[in-house]
Amino acid sequence: MNHIAAGKAGNASGESVGGQQRRVEEDLTARVLASFETCTDPRLKQLMQSLTRHLHAFIRDVRLTEAEWEAAIGFLTAAGHITDDKRQEFVLLSDVLGASMQTIAVNNEAQGNATEATVFGPFFVEDAPAIPIGGDIAGGAAGQPCWFEGTVTDAAGTPVPNARIEIWEADEGGFYDVQYADARIAGRGHLHSDAQGNYAFWGLTPTPYPIPHDGPVGKMLESVGRSPVRAAHLHFMVTAPGLRTLVTHIFVEGDPQLEIGDSVFGVKESLIKGFTEQPAGTPAPDGRDLGTAAWARTRFDIVLAPGEA
Amino acid sequence: MNHIAAGKAGNASGESVGGQQRRVEEDLTARVLASFETCTDPRLKQLMQSLTRHLHAFIRDVRLTEAEWEAAIGFLTAAGHITDDKRQEFVLLSDVLGASMQTIAVNNEAQGNATEATVFGPFFVEDAPAIPIGGDIAGGAAGQPCWFEGTVTDAAGTPVPNARIEIWEADEGGFYDVQYADARIAGRGHLHSDAQGNYAFWGLTPTPYPIPHDGPVGKMLESVGRSPVRAAHLHFMVTAPGLRTLVTHIFVEGDPQLEIGDSVFGVKESLIKGFTEQPAGTPAPDGRDLGTAAWARTRFDIVLAPGEA
Ligand SMILES: [Cu+2]
Ligand SMILES: [Fe+3]
Ligand SMILES: [Fe+3]
Repeated sequence: MNHIAAGKAGNASGESVGGQQRRVEEDLTARVLASFETCTDPRLKQLMQSLTRHLHAFIRDVRLTEAEWEAAIGFLTAAGHITDDKRQEFVLLSDVLGASMQTIAVNNEAQGNATEATVFGPFFVEDAPAIPIGGDIAGGAAGQPCWFEGTVTDAAGTPVPNARIEIWEADEGGFYDVQYADARIAGRGHLHSDAQGNYAFWGLTPTPYPIPHDGPVGKMLESVGRSPVRAAHLHFMVTAPGLRTLVTHIFVEGDPQLEIGDSVFGVKESLIKGFTEQPAGTPAPDGRDLGTAAWARTRFDIVLAPGEA
Repeated sequence: MNHIAAGKAGNASGESVGGQQRRVEEDLTARVLASFETCTDPRLKQLMQSLTRHLHAFIRDVRLTEAEWEAAIGFLTAAGHITDDKRQEFVLLSDVLGASMQTIAVNNEAQGNATEATVFGPFFVEDAPAIPIGGDIAGGAAGQPCWFEGTVTDAAGTPVPNARIEIWEADEGGFYDVQYADARIAGRGHLHSDAQGNYAFWGLTPTPYPIPHDGPVGKMLESVGRSPVRAAHLHFMVTAPGLRTLVTHIFVEGDPQLEIGDSVFGVKESLIKGFTEQPAGTPAPDGRDLGTAAWARTRFDIVLAPGEA
């Protein structure tokens, strides 16, 4: 869309901007757009020119003050300084602005019955422990044991053997392992589907947790009166040759946070699953002795769209 | 402007987006906008909602890929990590995208004959040395001596006595004092206009310099084929009670970089000044002995708009 033309009618704050002033502002945008004409990579040129158009339109629409500009610079600086190899404030920012989900929406157009994608989040770690089918990812993390099982198939229903299934989740306290200072590895792992496309593992019943909100993103959410809490979920990333990689979660039916709103807009109806509570003493599917603990179970059948892994 | 409505016609990359897919994308934007409805500060709500609209429209317009999203997160992270109390990569980013100048344009509408504003830049330092009228800001910085003089008046031409004039500039090598590791203070200072609104000081004839381009912003400029060089300039910030604070530069007539383009879009015709070369031996206005050095002189008469300092 042409912001320059579209902007002529007025701006979001309802201030009237005189013709000469508007010309000054538009000429500036035109000069910045022209500066990217030298770019020999057509895609990069398109990205930079579109970014320039939307950024300038935002500044003009809201009549951004210099104090607000300074606050924005300060915000980005603080986000940069709190970010390290374990804390990613820019991903959080993208998440709470719905920019992550919008990017996912753009790139994961619904394909028939394929499982829907959702946010990746900042807590994935490469090389999480391998577990066998039926193994346990908890690694000592506190929480109610939960049995997850399902199949991996393609869109035609053909089982996908040996799909790589990465799973990660927060503990009952609402923290991922990487949020602790002690280098523990817990609540994460990967396994492969069997020859019939089946998988199963023990994890924890997901519980709601706040995104890290002791930084600039948390302050912003507080300023606008938004909850930092994410609806309870467990992360999946599923890859198999010749099929589109799926990055998603499953959510817990009945979780009150589903009503309040997920802080990163990750919820899709199709990803909400029933988790069945199992009273203490109920025999586990794999014969595991759970002692006096109640546990839960759920099923998540994964359908991978065609595409490149 | 309403991006959601405006976007229906298509997107900048010319891809066709189906009706169902478009609905998914628009519904997401609507949910994010709704999340800010709880904000009790109407201005903050307006800012966040407008930012959301433009950011989502950008992602949809360019059909941002997940790899590009990751590159953007990586870019912001690198910018955050190179930023410290002396290096401000986010200001540079805002500058090279013209966002700084657009903000300045929005807030400094032309007012009759008032001197025009331009970018603040990242190199201002509080509490720069006080100099008397006719004093020297060079502080040992290398470069050709230059005599700057002029008046400070209000829009009616009435002299403004005791206006605070902050000035700062790079040395001949293209570096500000704060870019050296040795804590030097050079090429900066402040003085006050006299009872008749006159000021004068010795500095250095400005020379073009690149913005710091060893970081992510520099890499971006290189990728798109843009010069990081700024047209030669000297910075002014002028404050006086009851008048609008002026943040500006003066540029050097004949500087070839004025044709190539200033990397931060700071040039305005009215700020380009003649600098007259004075051969070695030409007596200085204040009788200073310049030895065998050629020097230069220029005049910059400053007109402050009405407003709050
Ligand atoms: Cu926009
Ligand atoms: Fe999570
Ligand atoms: Fe400068």
